[in-house]
Amino acid sequence: MYREYKLGACLPTFASCADRYCLSGYGRGETTVEGMLAAAKKVEGLDGLELVGNWHINDANIGKVTKQFRDLGLAIPMIVPDLWTQAKWGRGSLAAADARTRREAVTEVKKCMDWAAEVGCPFIDVWPGQDGYDYPFQADYSDAWKWMRDGVAECAAHSKKVKVLVEYKLREPRGHCFLSSAAKAILLLQGIPNTGCLLDVGHALAAGESMAEAVSLLSDHGLLDYVHLNDNHRDWDDDLIPGTIHVPEFLELAYWLVRTGYKGWLTLDIFPYREEKIPAAVESFEWIRHALSCVQDRGIDAITEIVRRGEGTDSVRLVREMLGGKAPRGGAR
Amino acid sequence: MYREYKLGACLPTFASCADRYCLSGYGRGETTVEGMLAAAKKVEGLDGLELVGNWHINDANIGKVTKQFRDLGLAIPMIVPDLWTQAKWGRGSLAAADARTRREAVTEVKKCMDWAAEVGCPFIDVWPGQDGYDYPFQADYSDAWKWMRDGVAECAAHSKKVKVLVEYKLREPRGHCFLSSAAKAILLLQGIPNTGCLLDVGHALAAGESMAEAVSLLSDHGLLDYVHLNDNHRDWDDDLIPGTIHVPEFLELAYWLVRTGYKGWLTLDIFPYREEKIPAAVESFEWIRHALSCVQDRGIDAITEIVRRGEGTDSVRLVREMLGGKAPRGGAR
Amino acid sequence: MYREYKLGACLPTFASCADRYCLSGYGRGETTVEGMLAAAKKVEGLDGLELVGNWHINDANIGKVTKQFRDLGLAIPMIVPDLWTQAKWGRGSLAAADARTRREAVTEVKKCMDWAAEVGCPFIDVWPGQDGYDYPFQADYSDAWKWMRDGVAECAAHSKKVKVLVEYKLREPRGHCFLSSAAKAILLLQGIPNTGCLLDVGHALAAGESMAEAVSLLSDHGLLDYVHLNDNHRDWDDDLIPGTIHVPEFLELAYWLVRTGYKGWLTLDIFPYREEKIPAAVESFEWIRHALSCVQDRGIDAITEIVRRGEGTDSVRLVREMLGGKAPRGGAR
Amino acid sequence: MYREYKLGACLPTFASCADRYCLSGYGRGETTVEGMLAAAKKVEGLDGLELVGNWHINDANIGKVTKQFRDLGLAIPMIVPDLWTQAKWGRGSLAAADARTRREAVTEVKKCMDWAAEVGCPFIDVWPGQDGYDYPFQADYSDAWKWMRDGVAECAAHSKKVKVLVEYKLREPRGHCFLSSAAKAILLLQGIPNTGCLLDVGHALAAGESMAEAVSLLSDHGLLDYVHLNDNHRDWDDDLIPGTIHVPEFLELAYWLVRTGYKGWLTLDIFPYREEKIPAAVESFEWIRHALSCVQDRGIDAITEIVRRGEGTDSVRLVREMLGGKAPRGGAR
Repeated sequence: MYREYKLGACLPTFASCADRYCLSGYGRGETTVEGMLAAAKKVEGLDGLELVGNWHINDANIGKVTKQFRDLGLAIPMIVPDLWTQAKWGRGSLAAADARTRREAVTEVKKCMDWAAEVGCPFIDVWPGQDGYDYPFQADYSDAWKWMRDGVAECAAHSKKVKVLVEYKLREPRGHCFLSSAAKAILLLQGIPNTGCLLDVGHALAAGESMAEAVSLLSDHGLLDYVHLNDNHRDWDDDLIPGTIHVPEFLELAYWLVRTGYKGWLTLDIFPYREEKIPAAVESFEWIRHALSCVQDRGIDAITEIVRRGEGTDSVRLVREMLGGKAPRGGAR
Repeated sequence: MYREYKLGACLPTFASCADRYCLSGYGRGETTVEGMLAAAKKVEGLDGLELVGNWHINDANIGKVTKQFRDLGLAIPMIVPDLWTQAKWGRGSLAAADARTRREAVTEVKKCMDWAAEVGCPFIDVWPGQDGYDYPFQADYSDAWKWMRDGVAECAAHSKKVKVLVEYKLREPRGHCFLSSAAKAILLLQGIPNTGCLLDVGHALAAGESMAEAVSLLSDHGLLDYVHLNDNHRDWDDDLIPGTIHVPEFLELAYWLVRTGYKGWLTLDIFPYREEKIPAAVESFEWIRHALSCVQDRGIDAITEIVRRGEGTDSVRLVREMLGGKAPRGGAR
Repeated sequence: MYREYKLGACLPTFASCADRYCLSGYGRGETTVEGMLAAAKKVEGLDGLELVGNWHINDANIGKVTKQFRDLGLAIPMIVPDLWTQAKWGRGSLAAADARTRREAVTEVKKCMDWAAEVGCPFIDVWPGQDGYDYPFQADYSDAWKWMRDGVAECAAHSKKVKVLVEYKLREPRGHCFLSSAAKAILLLQGIPNTGCLLDVGHALAAGESMAEAVSLLSDHGLLDYVHLNDNHRDWDDDLIPGTIHVPEFLELAYWLVRTGYKGWLTLDIFPYREEKIPAAVESFEWIRHALSCVQDRGIDAITEIVRRGEGTDSVRLVREMLGGKAPRGGAR
Repeated sequence: MYREYKLGACLPTFASCADRYCLSGYGRGETTVEGMLAAAKKVEGLDGLELVGNWHINDANIGKVTKQFRDLGLAIPMIVPDLWTQAKWGRGSLAAADARTRREAVTEVKKCMDWAAEVGCPFIDVWPGQDGYDYPFQADYSDAWKWMRDGVAECAAHSKKVKVLVEYKLREPRGHCFLSSAAKAILLLQGIPNTGCLLDVGHALAAGESMAEAVSLLSDHGLLDYVHLNDNHRDWDDDLIPGTIHVPEFLELAYWLVRTGYKGWLTLDIFPYREEKIPAAVESFEWIRHALSCVQDRGIDAITEIVRRGEGTDSVRLVREMLGGKAPRGGAR
């Protein structure tokens, strides 16, 4: 079953990851795009890599990058406009209070769409992580929402060759982000053609959502176009290896992806700060395969029957049995 | 400015509050509706009381209840259908997997609409708190959402005299509730006339939302019809007295209510488990008046100017000055 | 390996569970102690049941209860003084500001110790859930802590036949409880002989602790005497079936219980509100056995080797392999 | 009253703050120590600045730094050993699984103690933020705790001139940190002379603690030596300006600092990512003064009387009145 999905990774999976304390990075990673590509190529089953605009792909290197990917047999499923790595975006991008910044953000997104069209990449991922607020009385929520909608609409109209996806997240880098939940993403995109959602399942967890319910909701609105996989401790976007914590919910996610007919990419968005990068990616893919196998072995229809029954104990038993547990030895006497 | 709002309370504010450990209640409250009404009447400024269908108003007592309220000069701004106090709703009401339960829930809501029409109450509050899930693999999210929409639509078409509001909440009594956020409430109601939202600001806090942003979002969609006030520790619906914890955010809420032109009820939904009920209600109203006064004294336009500036330090200073702090003595030398 | 542990349950596991909305309970449970005992007896592997003082065991019925348990071949591993089900404890028990209430709480605990001694129960569980605060400026933390220590010390000196355990919890029923973490429990008990800790692993989760680290810390201080098992969504004490959510952490818990040489009771403290009680208990025991089997099959030493290595990817792979995942098919090419 | 406290700031308050997305920083800050000092000097009331070992003070510059501070009339109340900004500490410092790293960490701390002694700084702050774990089965909690204790003990014995403080934090940069709560800090330090605690109140908030209760607990154990001030949204260490969110709890903190007789430093540990640095520090000090004034104006004894009463409504009213609210106009009729 897992052959139906394309497996991807964000390119920085293979770089040295940094945080606000250790700004030079925790090491163990590659420092050049070439190095990252070479590392990625060692991960069996990897089908493609996401790129960040300007950093990994730009006017100067686009020909070279295209050739590198072609030579390695890797796809570019996603280009992410850089709306969050520079001080100029610190107070927002598409929804910044400053009109010139909003204009610049739209230009940046369009530029990435052009690059995407040129390399045959079907999607760009607009993640307005800097669009939000840290303090009460710091944002005009009404204006900001309208600006974000206008910006996305303008971008989406720029090219029919590339679909504009938005990625929601409750918080970080801002204390609160405007585009914070699956439902808000759906609201934002209503009436704007050529748009869809990127579901980062860790963002769903950190937003208090069920990953599976987010899949269901987005899918029922025809907006589930792309999936980022990782795990966390529910209170922050830790970007851990999938399978770390939320195993039953990860199995449920796999079930809903299959059930809703999602056929797209399953792309790692992990930050293996202190880990060797290649094994971290390999183990992530193994967990994805394991989750999909658990679901496949049990069978979608058999699972659906339990899901619809709504009996909690049966749901817990289902998970245990999928995870190697035996049918009850004991039970009621 | 606070004279523009009607001040209300849920009737159980004046009853003995119970929780899962102390099921007989923590005392200090009234045990009869008459007693609660008499207690409520002692709270200066109180304009009306919410009632729960069947428990406080029903076919047998509706004439008597109407007279009691008229005699006391109190309004009934809201009737809440009981979709959550009986075992039969334990696995859901409007979105229950069981079709007969869904039918029964719709009937219950319509019954409350009829009572509301009869007593001149403009709203009913559909809170589908039992509609959700506790375990992974326990809910068919897609079916449940459709059922909830269908149920609300059928109810909303039942009578034009009474508007059907929905109240969202992240969790409790279920581990996850389907109708969990302001954005989901908006999605649910799209295309269904005669509906709107009840914003319980404690539910917004517990859902990781900004109360003020929820006001803005609901208002921009024309769906903010009613407000419940209380406070909590962000991780649970504690139903504490407003002003307990989130003071700056409470001021911001007051500002957005005024700015968006909300003119409706500000109704207490507090559970003063261990407190004397009348003083708890009195102090709640004092906090509401204080917050509105702080905003009024500073002026909407002056605040808007700071909000649109987006400079965090200015926002914090604004709050301090509204709360009795002096203009900087020190500052940059 | 799981034969080394005694499996227990709190008696109310088999009763109808209520919450603050559905005070009459969600049904599906027994209403008499006899009924609960009969239901419990149907759960294979159950070795004993906890009782709450006054409610389940008291001066009037102690002879009868003893005989009932003897006849059924069930142990009474724990008696819990009722310091939390009555309005009189609403503002605290051992640490109440009111001196008379504190005195009454000590008397209540001693009474339970006498009953425990009489029926051969080795432990009582002091859970000071009502000792805490809901509002800022509502507690004299310094006094409260001293009172709680004094109360526990007086109780612990009352009888050498019964050990006084304390159970910590971050919150609920109070907004904050004084005895909120494993480390605080250790601090509280320092220098007081005849005391120990009851670790409710759901309370550890809701307190932001690692269940396994709590075992390690309590064990290193010689204070791990008893364990309650359940699961939750991390932000509340949901009392779900073990294995619902935190599967990897549950396996880790099992490993640390074995590694530290814990040999005591593993007792269910679940609230199966909407579930049939007997299957919920049966499935809970199956998950406990499954977790212990996963650890046993891999081997303590082999796991310890990975734990000490501290390489995150290896830890994730360990979990996957314990849960039925295969050794990597793919991996680095 | 606020003249009794020394007001400080971490030096990086005046630098450009970075996070994991914007590694080059959000700008608006100084890039050299000289620049930061000059900026700090412009903040009225500032008495001193914390330094990070190696980065701000080291063998090469210690003479120059001492002179700079003397010339500006600023104290150095704290030196923080760098156990967290370099990849070599990524898997831990004092509690690292690698013995050589542990040795290196002890050496680093001692080196800072020597510098502190030389410049007349009374404290060093050991913050073992990298000592923790991200994944289940990734840490030997028992070994780690022992190593941390041994390391702190060795450092504390190194010099009597400088006291070794430890700073706890629930998480970040690790998913879980070993030294995660006030109670754990007290446990860690038991029996080790020449040690104490640095309470970062934002860490208390993020750990689910009450800031005031942490002051009480640490103070009763004689271990409250130093305080860091900031604010956050409870789920992360946002390092916002004090007064942003938790105003009632901030007033309560001020009360407990006064009541327990704390006379030490109140030092800003804020990350004004997107703010101008000097105004952010100025406003922070204004909030500290405002909180202390609110407490002073009401009077410690008057507040204590309410605190000991334990009546929630009175506590809420107290806060309202301290924050400019009037005595009840309304109340019971």
